[in-house]
Amino acid sequence: MALVIIGGVAAGLSAAAEARRSDPHLEIVVLEQGPVISYGACGLPYFVEGRVRAPEELIVYTPEYFRKERKIDVRTGARVVSISHPRREVRLESGERVRYERLVIATGARCGRSGITGADRPHVFTLHTLDDAGRLRDFLRARQPRRAVVIGAGYIGVEAADALRRNGLEVTVLERSEHALLRHDAAMTVAVKKQLEAHRVDLRCGVAVDAIEADRVAGVPCDLVVIAAGFRPNVELANEAGVETGRTGAIRTDEHMETNLSGVYAAGDCAEVNHIVTGRPVNIPLGTTANKTGRVAGANAAGARQRFAGIVGTSIVGIFGMGFAITGLSEHEARLEGFTPVAARIEGRTRPRYYQPANTAVELVADRSTGRLLGGSVIGSDGAAGRINVIATALQAKMHVDEFARLDLAYSPPFSPVWDPLLLAAHRLLKNL
Amino acid sequence: MALVIIGGVAAGLSAAAEARRSDPHLEIVVLEQGPVISYGACGLPYFVEGRVRAPEELIVYTPEYFRKERKIDVRTGARVVSISHPRREVRLESGERVRYERLVIATGARCGRSGITGADRPHVFTLHTLDDAGRLRDFLRARQPRRAVVIGAGYIGVEAADALRRNGLEVTVLERSEHALLRHDAAMTVAVKKQLEAHRVDLRCGVAVDAIEADRVAGVPCDLVVIAAGFRPNVELANEAGVETGRTGAIRTDEHMETNLSGVYAAGDCAEVNHIVTGRPVNIPLGTTANKTGRVAGANAAGARQRFAGIVGTSIVGIFGMGFAITGLSEHEARLEGFTPVAARIEGRTRPRYYQPANTAVELVADRSTGRLLGGSVIGSDGAAGRINVIATALQAKMHVDEFARLDLAYSPPFSPVWDPLLLAAHRLLKNL
Repeated sequence: MALVIIGGVAAGLSAAAEARRSDPHLEIVVLEQGPVISYGACGLPYFVEGRVRAPEELIVYTPEYFRKERKIDVRTGARVVSISHPRREVRLESGERVRYERLVIATGARCGRSGITGADRPHVFTLHTLDDAGRLRDFLRARQPRRAVVIGAGYIGVEAADALRRNGLEVTVLERSEHALLRHDAAMTVAVKKQLEAHRVDLRCGVAVDAIEADRVAGVPCDLVVIAAGFRPNVELANEAGVETGRTGAIRTDEHMETNLSGVYAAGDCAEVNHIVTGRPVNIPLGTTANKTGRVAGANAAGARQRFAGIVGTSIVGIFGMGFAITGLSEHEARLEGFTPVAARIEGRTRPRYYQPANTAVELVADRSTGRLLGGSVIGSDGAAGRINVIATALQAKMHVDEFARLDLAYSPPFSPVWDPLLLAAHRLLKNL
Repeated sequence: MALVIIGGVAAGLSAAAEARRSDPHLEIVVLEQGPVISYGACGLPYFVEGRVRAPEELIVYTPEYFRKERKIDVRTGARVVSISHPRREVRLESGERVRYERLVIATGARCGRSGITGADRPHVFTLHTLDDAGRLRDFLRARQPRRAVVIGAGYIGVEAADALRRNGLEVTVLERSEHALLRHDAAMTVAVKKQLEAHRVDLRCGVAVDAIEADRVAGVPCDLVVIAAGFRPNVELANEAGVETGRTGAIRTDEHMETNLSGVYAAGDCAEVNHIVTGRPVNIPLGTTANKTGRVAGANAAGARQRFAGIVGTSIVGIFGMGFAITGLSEHEARLEGFTPVAARIEGRTRPRYYQPANTAVELVADRSTGRLLGGSVIGSDGAAGRINVIATALQAKMHVDEFARLDLAYSPPFSPVWDPLLLAAHRLLKNL
């Protein structure tokens, strides 16, 4: 009898490590279907770019490390094909059965090749595993493609576009929706498009791709295609075992990351979590959330009682050196969630005029009736991560705009202007409220 | 009858501008003793360094601008020598009397030449006004000094040391206390000393300077001396008029920045403000606070009703490209304030290992009995301002460590590791609590 964890990347291994911390004697088995564990999936675009030279640099831990140092049995190439909760066992592709007392499902997500004819052509790639990235890198070297189409303008899509452009390719990004970065936010999409175009990457929104031809996609000639769209949580295994999914299509969990089946936990990209601003479940697949929910699931599966309060939806992506960061709700999302949002957007300097400033744009969104801060975005080559994190902290504290406008932020000419752009945006928003 | 403001730099001009916003018709007079107004005092070290080429670059507004655009009468060379509150008038050095209905005192602070014999020698400088910086710059050009002593290891002291070293001088910093940056924080002092020494600046703590000789200070040979110590609020004018000072020696104010005399307000470096962590008045002279308290004083003096909630003591200083940032209380300060502090300090990376990370150190302090966060510090060449601002925001929200440890911070390889150093420090602190 043991704790069995399905999945050996961010959430699964976080769960395993935290379970070991909670219980030094528990038998812990991690079942990973792929050939390697513990790789930094977020680093794959930088391997494609060439900045990361060898895929091994992206691997943090080996199965041997977990076996020796943590007494955790990590098995690669161990694909689970079914879960029988009444028998408390999982069945592997090999036919082997592994019994569990507690189970953590960390099966992740995948991008959607299905529904696109021609997605199996040899010049079509995804960027999900080390193997994917390795094959794409090999293709770049061997075939020297000149024109790439990236399907999807989410994080991985724009990072892939950046990486391919830096390799000298002509790149076109095709996005089905009208918005980049999966955020219904017109100003953000305009800024992303502008930054991509400044580096000669073409972003076309509102283009649905149903087929990949041998030499073109949606009329755009190309000899390389990266699919970075249609991400869906891997929930089939869980569903067949009676684990319920929620409104987002991901596995429903409580604040202890436990599913509807007692003793069965879920974590990472396959699981729903609470959105602290709306109080509703969301599925936003990110490495940070995978690590955090993995820890909570692992601790609780090992008998502890940890709570995951939720996320505020903070993320950042770099496009040719510029940071595009969001947290909480956009004005449009806030309206959909039943708020009466008011937004303010400013463009400011990151340092005093006399100290070689860069430009940055800050948008804040608040609820008109209460003044509560609901979200924000920051765009800039300098300090975007720090500034979005301040907004994220304020969201977690359920701060109101008037208090945010009084924040005592650090000032010194090499680091910021005396009125930080965050405060300027808050002052503007106070006027609009 | 008018609003009279004594002082034409950060706090005074913020007060004037905000008073105008509150009341378009009020008569507003600003009396500045010096020859210029509205200069970025925090930029003076960068003018000494040579990065800022002309002192005019540091001037934001001219008296003409205020006169024409804001209908504010700004007088330079107008030194107030006394205030008669019963008559509601101030008297200028010239003998002229100016009547007021409301008064804002923004007389700033000065550094203490007094008590040091030889402070009036021609090779001794302070860095308080544009004129000070201009004279020092001229001296550097004309005399080509080779060895400098800086008295005081506060912000201006270390910035001056950095600027002089970059001009090729040998620099020794002498600090009376055992601590750099005015913070009783041994780890911070060690880090400052290390960074200064890496750039061949010698920091000696525990050295009291009573006399400046022609060719040496406290035994250190030198041909240039900068006094950047003994800062004291300019309160004599106020005191003589019956305005009370508080425990810090600065002018006592309520949350509307009003003094004990009705209709008389104080703002900026000469005034006390509330420290949000301790609930006690402090006097921490900084440009950010001067601007904020100036606005509140000006608005209220013009008939509005604004409130200044206080500060958490956030600041940052750059020393040879490294940021040293603090907010809230150090462990030692927390103990003095009656808390039972617990601290945790970590050294972490600012990005994943595979993405050329820099190092950063984060310290967090919390109260053992409640778990409430009390303060923190961040040292690093990358992201120190953003990280200290996250801690500052949490302090303002009176956040506890367990909540801080769950912050949803932005992650992407070019910007941060998946576990931000802030979160690693919080996890360490949770273990120590």
